[in-house]
Amino acid sequence: MYSFKNDYSEGTHERILKALIESNLEQTEGYGEDVYTQKAIELMKERIGRSDVDIHLFVGGTQTNLTVISAFLRPHEAAIAANTGHILVHETGAIEATGHKVISIKVNDGKLRPEDIKPALDAHTDEHMVKPKMVYISNPTEIGSIYSKNELELLSKFCRENKLILYVDGARLGSALCSEENDMELSDLGKLVDAFYIGGTKNGALMGEALVICNDSLKEDFRFHIKQKGALLAKGRLLGIQFLELFKDDLYFDLARNANAMANLLKKEITAAGYKFLTHSPSNQVFPILPDKLIEKLQAEYSFYIWEKVDEYNSAVRLVTSWATKEEEVLGFIENLKKFTVNK
Amino acid sequence: MYSFKNDYSEGTHERILKALIESNLEQTEGYGEDVYTQKAIELMKERIGRSDVDIHLFVGGTQTNLTVISAFLRPHEAAIAANTGHILVHETGAIEATGHKVISIKVNDGKLRPEDIKPALDAHTDEHMVKPKMVYISNPTEIGSIYSKNELELLSKFCRENKLILYVDGARLGSALCSEENDMELSDLGKLVDAFYIGGTKNGALMGEALVICNDSLKEDFRFHIKQKGALLAKGRLLGIQFLELFKDDLYFDLARNANAMANLLKKEITAAGYKFLTHSPSNQVFPILPDKLIEKLQAEYSFYIWEKVDEYNSAVRLVTSWATKEEEVLGFIENLKKFTVNK
Amino acid sequence: MYSFKNDYSEGTHERILKALIESNLEQTEGYGEDVYTQKAIELMKERIGRSDVDIHLFVGGTQTNLTVISAFLRPHEAAIAANTGHILVHETGAIEATGHKVISIKVNDGKLRPEDIKPALDAHTDEHMVKPKMVYISNPTEIGSIYSKNELELLSKFCRENKLILYVDGARLGSALCSEENDMELSDLGKLVDAFYIGGTKNGALMGEALVICNDSLKEDFRFHIKQKGALLAKGRLLGIQFLELFKDDLYFDLARNANAMANLLKKEITAAGYKFLTHSPSNQVFPILPDKLIEKLQAEYSFYIWEKVDEYNSAVRLVTSWATKEEEVLGFIENLKKFTVNK
Amino acid sequence: MYSFKNDYSEGTHERILKALIESNLEQTEGYGEDVYTQKAIELMKERIGRSDVDIHLFVGGTQTNLTVISAFLRPHEAAIAANTGHILVHETGAIEATGHKVISIKVNDGKLRPEDIKPALDAHTDEHMVKPKMVYISNPTEIGSIYSKNELELLSKFCRENKLILYVDGARLGSALCSEENDMELSDLGKLVDAFYIGGTKNGALMGEALVICNDSLKEDFRFHIKQKGALLAKGRLLGIQFLELFKDDLYFDLARNANAMANLLKKEITAAGYKFLTHSPSNQVFPILPDKLIEKLQAEYSFYIWEKVDEYNSAVRLVTSWATKEEEVLGFIENLKKFTVNK
Repeated sequence: MYSFKNDYSEGTHERILKALIESNLEQTEGYGEDVYTQKAIELMKERIGRSDVDIHLFVGGTQTNLTVISAFLRPHEAAIAANTGHILVHETGAIEATGHKVISIKVNDGKLRPEDIKPALDAHTDEHMVKPKMVYISNPTEIGSIYSKNELELLSKFCRENKLILYVDGARLGSALCSEENDMELSDLGKLVDAFYIGGTKNGALMGEALVICNDSLKEDFRFHIKQKGALLAKGRLLGIQFLELFKDDLYFDLARNANAMANLLKKEITAAGYKFLTHSPSNQVFPILPDKLIEKLQAEYSFYIWEKVDEYNSAVRLVTSWATKEEEVLGFIENLKKFTVNK
Repeated sequence: MYSFKNDYSEGTHERILKALIESNLEQTEGYGEDVYTQKAIELMKERIGRSDVDIHLFVGGTQTNLTVISAFLRPHEAAIAANTGHILVHETGAIEATGHKVISIKVNDGKLRPEDIKPALDAHTDEHMVKPKMVYISNPTEIGSIYSKNELELLSKFCRENKLILYVDGARLGSALCSEENDMELSDLGKLVDAFYIGGTKNGALMGEALVICNDSLKEDFRFHIKQKGALLAKGRLLGIQFLELFKDDLYFDLARNANAMANLLKKEITAAGYKFLTHSPSNQVFPILPDKLIEKLQAEYSFYIWEKVDEYNSAVRLVTSWATKEEEVLGFIENLKKFTVNK
Repeated sequence: MYSFKNDYSEGTHERILKALIESNLEQTEGYGEDVYTQKAIELMKERIGRSDVDIHLFVGGTQTNLTVISAFLRPHEAAIAANTGHILVHETGAIEATGHKVISIKVNDGKLRPEDIKPALDAHTDEHMVKPKMVYISNPTEIGSIYSKNELELLSKFCRENKLILYVDGARLGSALCSEENDMELSDLGKLVDAFYIGGTKNGALMGEALVICNDSLKEDFRFHIKQKGALLAKGRLLGIQFLELFKDDLYFDLARNANAMANLLKKEITAAGYKFLTHSPSNQVFPILPDKLIEKLQAEYSFYIWEKVDEYNSAVRLVTSWATKEEEVLGFIENLKKFTVNK
Repeated sequence: MYSFKNDYSEGTHERILKALIESNLEQTEGYGEDVYTQKAIELMKERIGRSDVDIHLFVGGTQTNLTVISAFLRPHEAAIAANTGHILVHETGAIEATGHKVISIKVNDGKLRPEDIKPALDAHTDEHMVKPKMVYISNPTEIGSIYSKNELELLSKFCRENKLILYVDGARLGSALCSEENDMELSDLGKLVDAFYIGGTKNGALMGEALVICNDSLKEDFRFHIKQKGALLAKGRLLGIQFLELFKDDLYFDLARNANAMANLLKKEITAAGYKFLTHSPSNQVFPILPDKLIEKLQAEYSFYIWEKVDEYNSAVRLVTSWATKEEEVLGFIENLKKFTVNK
């Protein structure tokens, strides 16, 4: 049974494993104050093109999101997210548990634009309602779409004009930045947003997300918040070593490129087999619409999520590729898909 | 510069590293639903001698404590801890951040006994005060002392009579259970307390704590709380693989035994050199009282914490040994201590 | 300038004022443990027809809602509310500030039915999402609609089958129960729901809401939560005296009947004048759709809220009547409306 | 049975009652935006001698404290209080429920001085501990002592040097400012502290506390916090009318003077009867040490709290006088005390 369920089914890239092995018996300072972490941070700052950002390493994404939002907002302030937003749907109320409402905006493609946000600002008029203060977006979004540079610029401008903090959840940021349709770089994020994180867990690390705080006013005492939320890893070097390896050359992007290439191959072949997709997704998640009977047969050999029912006989499924997905597995899947299609 | 600062300065035991390498490219389910985690849990249940406990793996100790206390208590209920308790002093208000007061009880040796707790119960008489509902202890305590089986039995009885949840922070539980003065086993904990955790981070794992919930009434929906607190690791197998390796034979205890043996050696030799200790500590932390001038010289070669000033010329320092501490390093330290003592 | 903005523009009914004056210099116990509060609670229990419910008096509605929800739910549990629900829109994130998500269900008439709730239950499938645990409704709803006995019975049955707590915000409960379309009594609420509150602030009291907890499992330690949320009034008798006066005979319902009668008069006359309404509202709020030019003229003489724009030239306004609204003021308003209509 | 249990046993001063009656049927804006509240605020600003402070009216003290602390502090920041502090002992963890630790400082007379606070600052050294950010004091303290102007000046200077917010709980502020030993005025508070509240509930109002925010940086969006905590009273004028009456002349202080005079009479006569006091208390609470047998007899006629056991045969009791305490009741108490003393 091969899995296209997600991009964290395997361990880590062999270079990361090697780096962990080589440093294993060294003694280092705890809590991210080790030399590996410091070096990794320096390398990422160079990539971002700003030496003045603050970078903190976390173990996971929900942890990063709840620490960031709780640290950045005052109690009466709320975050705005697309209705598909991870913090709205898949984090068990982690943000609300820190005291903050998340305002849901219904959109079709997972992306927030100024015209989607404006009505929410207008509707929150006085102290009987929460005060919208942060715009939370994911790139790529939870349904695989990505922001263009122009879209992010417009959003950034809108947020600055309206004193809104713009925060980007980059759980799969590598896949977005390496998409064929992408026209942005890390350095653009560094200029346009207040904070974002560079996801490692879903791009070949054992675990780890690198939070980048660009806005000076949000930096103060941030490590207190990390510790308070239980997110300060004792052997912080584990994160440092991994991000150092990912960013000492292009490994981070190479891994994302493999995931995207495999997703593109899936899209091409599934299209060739005559199927359509639920949504346009230029990153490492694809959402083909398949007959339920075909899905049933595929499930005997492959593991993946059924995303949603489309009509009486068809459903969209989610196939996720990763840094570790091999072309032979994709081709095998396609072969099965064709075989079951013929036999239907 | 050799470090006696803590027991998480190195990476992990080579067997754990090997297990990670061997399983690296396997695909597994996420979020702790993989086979490694299930096997590790089975092995720990056997050690505890109860198949009916629930076991959940966490990345770190503060994370475990805040998830547990937040899940177990209603909003008006409070935890009771010794004044040295980790949740009171060193977790940046993590427990209060989930809404709960921690009641501090002043004790001398880090340990709570029924007679220490009773006055706090008596002082909380009505709805104008929080309701004490949990007793939080650490074994070993933050200053290295350990509970005897009889002490834990008395505490357990008292808690049950007073409807208090008894929770044991076992960040260094291996060291306690392998202490020469210990007369308890994991199975005793399983019988006497409502929940406890088996610390991995400070006993040779890369990271990881295994929470054991013994009391049925505290088990429901616990995974929701783990997720909400950002503590559900995507590649949960990383924790499972480590605890599987630690408990497939006696590795967990062997590692603790090394830490204790090295601490005992330190105590023996420091005593022989004519120094006294701040507190009786039969586990892997020792607190010798040394002349400030000697401390200054030692600091040029070794890294460790100065615990507290004892008088005008002397301070207690904290030396921590670990699974990775080598006898030659301890002997080297002693040699230096003696050399600097002679030259003082 | 006469106000139809809300039902808390005046002080209190003269009988309540008289009761306050007469008892003013008596000494009583604080925090609701006085004899007036005890008597008021007894009278309300009789009306509800259950001596086994617990009743607690609060100062205001948001305070009641946040204390109730925070006390009843565990951290990972969420409340479900109609998209117009007061806790969703007009309480500044008070519920989220206690750590709980409120799930919004889009409905047209302000009312929740089992078929509205079922999809939300189905969508929350595992520990990556909050667990829906409470259904919050208002009767009347925020847009003036009321629940029939049959509707509440169906909802009650559904909640019990799905282990959901059913809680009714009764800020304007008097108006609902005295509506011409109502077929329920207080005793029906006592049988069908887990908790509800009888609103005083919006029905002639200076302030005050009486929370009724019907479900035994939700009663324990409730006063701790009241105190913790800053809701335990020192001179609790102020609430007791008022509810005693409201329930020693039919005063509570008489006051609501006046509000409803005045609303009915408004509806009748506005209909006669040729205007329609945004929504069917058989309680003390009416939502006529009027030309914007007419609204502008009315605003010179009357204060009320513009509810929403309906088309280019017309808007719905909200007119609220109360225990204190006089027929002459309603007639005066109608006269003006007709006058401005003629002159338009 | 006459009560010396507290200073909120009776209703309100007749002038306040009269003002409520006279305004009863007027229509006013809700939520404190009425003219009475505005006038009351203007009068208080004049007394404080600063037109630039912000004043908000609350219903009760715990509500005020939790709203203030939650609004002023970031999640990792803590308040420092004397071990007797109301927020530490008698508010059911209300502050912790908003996420903040309260650091307890052991003092003997209920007062905090710079030398008491300094060690707490020194002990909180890094991000593993909360960050002390507010100093919470009460004047008078919970055991009746009061701050001199010089003491408050030293504290203010210390707080400003250490970037600590100085907040004064003034539940019984009238009694402090009217004490024979007092050398401060409202205007001194306005200059020396960041925020304080002028207590009404314990000084003759039905309910009500006037929060004064002096520090500009703490003012923004404060009404959002009031609403979120359920503390924005719908008929806000009830608070405005009362504070208007209290401050339109010297009524607020006259009421406090009566409470103090009655307390002084108690102290004088109890001293004359040969008894001592637990603590020096120049405000409206006195703590005489009486034989347990005498206490028992007094309890048959009077209601009051037994504060603490002093030795095997004696206890300290707390007697509280108020704006409503009559000389004849005090003299009656003294008579009984003497009678029972003779007969002992």
